[in-house]
Amino acid sequence: MADERRSRSVTRADVARYAGVSTAVVSYVLNDGPKRVAPLTKERVLDAVRVLGYRPNAAARALSMGSADMFGLLVHDNRSPFFAELCHALDQASADRGRSLLIVNSDRTQVATSEQIRDLVSRQIGGLIIADVLTAGEQGLVESLRIPSVVIGQFGETEGLHGVGVDFCAGARVAVEHLIGHGYHDIAFVGSAARYDERERGWSEALAAARLPLGQLLHTPFSYQGGYEAGMRLVQGGRMPRAVLAASDQIAIGMLTAFGERGVRVPDDVAIVSFDGTVSADYVWPRLTTAMQPLQRMADAAVQALIEPTEGPSYQEFSAQLRLRESCGCPPAGS
Amino acid sequence: MADERRSRSVTRADVARYAGVSTAVVSYVLNDGPKRVAPLTKERVLDAVRVLGYRPNAAARALSMGSADMFGLLVHDNRSPFFAELCHALDQASADRGRSLLIVNSDRTQVATSEQIRDLVSRQIGGLIIADVLTAGEQGLVESLRIPSVVIGQFGETEGLHGVGVDFCAGARVAVEHLIGHGYHDIAFVGSAARYDERERGWSEALAAARLPLGQLLHTPFSYQGGYEAGMRLVQGGRMPRAVLAASDQIAIGMLTAFGERGVRVPDDVAIVSFDGTVSADYVWPRLTTAMQPLQRMADAAVQALIEPTEGPSYQEFSAQLRLRESCGCPPAGS
Repeated sequence: MADERRSRSVTRADVARYAGVSTAVVSYVLNDGPKRVAPLTKERVLDAVRVLGYRPNAAARALSMGSADMFGLLVHDNRSPFFAELCHALDQASADRGRSLLIVNSDRTQVATSEQIRDLVSRQIGGLIIADVLTAGEQGLVESLRIPSVVIGQFGETEGLHGVGVDFCAGARVAVEHLIGHGYHDIAFVGSAARYDERERGWSEALAAARLPLGQLLHTPFSYQGGYEAGMRLVQGGRMPRAVLAASDQIAIGMLTAFGERGVRVPDDVAIVSFDGTVSADYVWPRLTTAMQPLQRMADAAVQALIEPTEGPSYQEFSAQLRLRESCGCPPAGS
Repeated sequence: MADERRSRSVTRADVARYAGVSTAVVSYVLNDGPKRVAPLTKERVLDAVRVLGYRPNAAARALSMGSADMFGLLVHDNRSPFFAELCHALDQASADRGRSLLIVNSDRTQVATSEQIRDLVSRQIGGLIIADVLTAGEQGLVESLRIPSVVIGQFGETEGLHGVGVDFCAGARVAVEHLIGHGYHDIAFVGSAARYDERERGWSEALAAARLPLGQLLHTPFSYQGGYEAGMRLVQGGRMPRAVLAASDQIAIGMLTAFGERGVRVPDDVAIVSFDGTVSADYVWPRLTTAMQPLQRMADAAVQALIEPTEGPSYQEFSAQLRLRESCGCPPAGS
């Protein structure tokens, strides 16, 4: 603490006095310009900086050194449990590598996402992590900024950009195969209304491979409320499936709420398997069987991709791991 | 988009050429030094900046203008549903006032919180929002940095700093009075193990005012798991209270999981009221009756305190509002 305080109080003027130069010369040295400084003078200034423990502020450091010590993270909405955990995993992965992470929400209506990307980049970040769906224009912008960048947690590859993701199709296939293994034949899928989801393909492929008919397909927003509404549609439609694959834990938790409200028992009346493996899937009853995304490993890969960018875009795909709990009909944990 | 692209490609060299000066002179004008520039020349440079739409990068702008366009937010752990919603509300409040918000997690083991505060401040933020418990040393550091700052969402006032919070004691009193109104006389409190919680006082005051004996008092971590463990302690202790006030939605959701697992019915066997009013309290069954913290109003007040700081520390306290749902024994919503 004492040391930190001391370094805080050291100013550029102190450095100038110690080195016997003007404050302008100190600036030239630290900013590498605009004027050139004689090598010996420069040496004297840098010595003074070291001896006094002078910490030029980050903006100045950024200007002079290109600031590789901070990454920026653009996330659509930090409140989603999945993305909240992803943010935290990325923060941890950055910290493990000596970097800090600045998190920015992109779901503002007042500010264009492109403006936010530009703003983050102009703060001299050493890399940009994008946990959001980009428009073609935003994507082009990121490419044009020529800053190390990586897209994480989206539906498959983003053309032209590095990416880290999960094999949604295979994960969904394994989940549906598990439900089939329980003896369920009428299996519905509840997924995103916004865009095509590879989990939908995994679901239909697993059913086809088992020569089972396609079950009900419901599209709904990726939220608790979306899951609640889908659950209500199933209850009110009068044709309850025997099991459901939900595309996210949030959707599944919303469905559980609807089923609880209507007295539909899980897994006795309808079994559920979800996707993501967030902590919240552990704190519902019955607990959710869920295809876990290996968030920390994905985050590590994303941060590593910023630190050691490869030539051209690449995509690293991880496997989801089915975690068995009670919602699918498996015996209670511990058994 | 086209406009943005254009402005992106404008460099300091373009400005210099347009204004007929050297790039060093452009720097002097934009950074307000270190050399002085003749007023007419300065005018010419600023004209060129406007005409060409030149955007010096934020680090340079920060150096020259003190950068009031960005606030920093230090949050202990962005994954907690309450703090996730608080982050988002602060982001919204900042955006409403033309500011952006940089969110930083402070629960890293590798980096001292004081270092993170210093790092945020050195990035020339216009104000610092602290959604975390500070040590005395960190608190002294924030004061010494002389940057507008405000503490939000903590247990009462932080001495020496602006603060925005909720009257936990009054909120808890109202919640317990509601449970008493349901006819419950044996009311437990499950709260934080970490530090004294005014909600505990509100609980005991409400019981005393109704001449009811103090119920069981359980301390547990502020997490889903902490709530789960507290719920299990109640079930296994063999002396179930008729009702529980939980200090957070997260604790209540963890308790619901334990009760579900053990076949304890809510609210029939035990009623629950919680605190916070996060979205997740809406997506459990039964839905949680909860003392809502007015997050957006609190966030607005915090951001406003940064923009128009008053002399000396002040503390703005908001009231929690009891939101009735099914977990306390109230009839289902809509009735």
